[in-house]
Amino acid sequence: MKTKFFIPKEEFAERIERLQGVIANKDIDAVLVFSTESEPAGVRYFSDYWPSFETSAVLVPKTGEPILLIGPESMTFASGRSKIERIIKMKDFRESSQPNYPGTTLMTWKELLNDLRIKKMGVSGWYMFPYVIFENIVRVIGRDNILEADEFVREVTLKKSVAELNCLREAARISELGFKAVLQNIKPGMTEAQLAGIAAGAMMGSGAEATGYPIWCCSGPNSTQAISRPSHRKVQKGEIIHFSVGAKVDGYSASIGRPVVLGHCPDETREFMQVGLDAENMTIDLMRAGTKADVVAQKVHSFISDRGYGDTILYGPAHGCGQMECEYPFIETSSDFVLDQGMVFMVDIFLAKQNMGFRWEDGVIITDGKAEELSNFKRKINIL
Amino acid sequence: MKTKFFIPKEEFAERIERLQGVIANKDIDAVLVFSTESEPAGVRYFSDYWPSFETSAVLVPKTGEPILLIGPESMTFASGRSKIERIIKMKDFRESSQPNYPGTTLMTWKELLNDLRIKKMGVSGWYMFPYVIFENIVRVIGRDNILEADEFVREVTLKKSVAELNCLREAARISELGFKAVLQNIKPGMTEAQLAGIAAGAMMGSGAEATGYPIWCCSGPNSTQAISRPSHRKVQKGEIIHFSVGAKVDGYSASIGRPVVLGHCPDETREFMQVGLDAENMTIDLMRAGTKADVVAQKVHSFISDRGYGDTILYGPAHGCGQMECEYPFIETSSDFVLDQGMVFMVDIFLAKQNMGFRWEDGVIITDGKAEELSNFKRKINIL
Repeated sequence: MKTKFFIPKEEFAERIERLQGVIANKDIDAVLVFSTESEPAGVRYFSDYWPSFETSAVLVPKTGEPILLIGPESMTFASGRSKIERIIKMKDFRESSQPNYPGTTLMTWKELLNDLRIKKMGVSGWYMFPYVIFENIVRVIGRDNILEADEFVREVTLKKSVAELNCLREAARISELGFKAVLQNIKPGMTEAQLAGIAAGAMMGSGAEATGYPIWCCSGPNSTQAISRPSHRKVQKGEIIHFSVGAKVDGYSASIGRPVVLGHCPDETREFMQVGLDAENMTIDLMRAGTKADVVAQKVHSFISDRGYGDTILYGPAHGCGQMECEYPFIETSSDFVLDQGMVFMVDIFLAKQNMGFRWEDGVIITDGKAEELSNFKRKINIL
Repeated sequence: MKTKFFIPKEEFAERIERLQGVIANKDIDAVLVFSTESEPAGVRYFSDYWPSFETSAVLVPKTGEPILLIGPESMTFASGRSKIERIIKMKDFRESSQPNYPGTTLMTWKELLNDLRIKKMGVSGWYMFPYVIFENIVRVIGRDNILEADEFVREVTLKKSVAELNCLREAARISELGFKAVLQNIKPGMTEAQLAGIAAGAMMGSGAEATGYPIWCCSGPNSTQAISRPSHRKVQKGEIIHFSVGAKVDGYSASIGRPVVLGHCPDETREFMQVGLDAENMTIDLMRAGTKADVVAQKVHSFISDRGYGDTILYGPAHGCGQMECEYPFIETSSDFVLDQGMVFMVDIFLAKQNMGFRWEDGVIITDGKAEELSNFKRKINIL
């Protein structure tokens, strides 16, 4: 039977039930899960809706049916995608251009919260939740009755289901296709943006619903950028050209990070990339259920430092992965959690010196033994 | 001489000066302009930096040099792009996965605001400004000393410069190339996502730095979606397949909206699309400097209603365009501003019935006479 790469409808109902289980004995009446176009994970996780231009939230009461809250322009878009049946339009989720929509009737927080008898509410997406919406809710239930609820949602989302893992494996497979399209077409003189466009087109032609994040190619001096965006710089021979390419499949985002060199590769560059590759392999080997995350980080960073590249470390060496390509938790030397089966990470070795940098990045699923890689794409230094 | 499609460095300094001019006699010491990955306009306008994963802000004091505030991972990315020299990393702008970055020294709001003697501050990006950052600033300068400053920034951004208009014209030209690539390749059975991928790849291969927004193709029942995202639905003959395709050039986003029908087009569908096309042409014809925006909206909506399609109207008929493809102000029946030279709008006729919908969308520059269209792409009903 062909593997299906989507989250079945019943799984969305189970997610709501699991969140309701987590908050059952908590001192709140509901959780409001807020999302935006670039941070869509919470709303998509519980509803399958995926906002654009407008923002959105899922309101999960302690018991009973959840409600999807959307902006005024997205009703047919949301109802075509949402696994939550009840959908309500509210002005607070409108787009940033702030239209008035004269003649449109929109529900207020007072009507909604009073109707559901919500007097105390947790908010997830806490760190991006807009002040203005917060204050509109304060006017109904008071400042002391709105609490952070990110940890409740994380309890539900942290370990991935079979369906989620399949979406992530497929996202990784398609990410590879994006990178392979680059390898097949790259030539000196092409721009970073062109190369990113080749990857994006190849992934969307191969079953990705979108790129997993704003993917990039960064080259030469730009290769020192841990986060980047493609520019119109033309890639050249002999420099590091590094790619962060990822596909999204039914809401799940993978990534593949690789440096490429065209033509002759200086020894210094090759040695630097090799340290990163060795660190990437070492990290994957260390990541097993029962291992402390900080111990993984300490060992990998010690290895890089011992090789003389300690000052090229910026973060990591890994971070959670799911609906966001980079999601909680980070594996870093200050982490205080233990790896567990079903958690998914992007092993992400980014190193940068003054004039060059690169990323090796691959997804892994934590198991009792050696981690399962999301895909079996070979890690090697690409000198073309 | 070849037209250049970028904003010259000195224009960024002028923008800061103009904002400082606007706040010179206002009761605030600075404006904080906040932006995110999907709402990058404010930060990009004043600094040319364009956040991804992390968020960002530009701090413009009443006098003196501005400061770009970024997250902990973006220093080389930001310094490679920013036209603002002073760049400071702060924890409040880190990515949503919330890494700790052990060993990294980050500036606090107390240090920053005390250093600059800022006691009262306006915030732009007010409607998306995170509650958590707001409260961190409250702890330094108090709740009553943080005010909305969107209108001050709008005074500066509303009318476009020659360089901005050139970027928008180029973005419109490349948007057309994206749509033409679709027209050349579309066949029944292709998915919406594939078609969006063709448009994205074509635009990035032709000089776009990115798509102007998460572009889409929506077909059949999905064509009723005013805002959408491409799905894996296969496009079919005889149905409306509508495209919202836009390119970004040096921060400026254009769009082209068109319906397409493959094979035989039912009369009912053709008549409906023609009403939209007539309304699009009528709107462009009405938009001249000195005209009241609400009068444009009333005339166009009356025309659509008189033709029997009043209940297919959702909004509009136009909205501002610049760094965001859809930015303030909206032209709607409740608008209370007058069109002026140098303002740029997307004329955006979106109409939807129960089972079909479409968008006609084209950019215009307001002049004393007939509006200048951003591009000269012919508006016609595409039946292929």
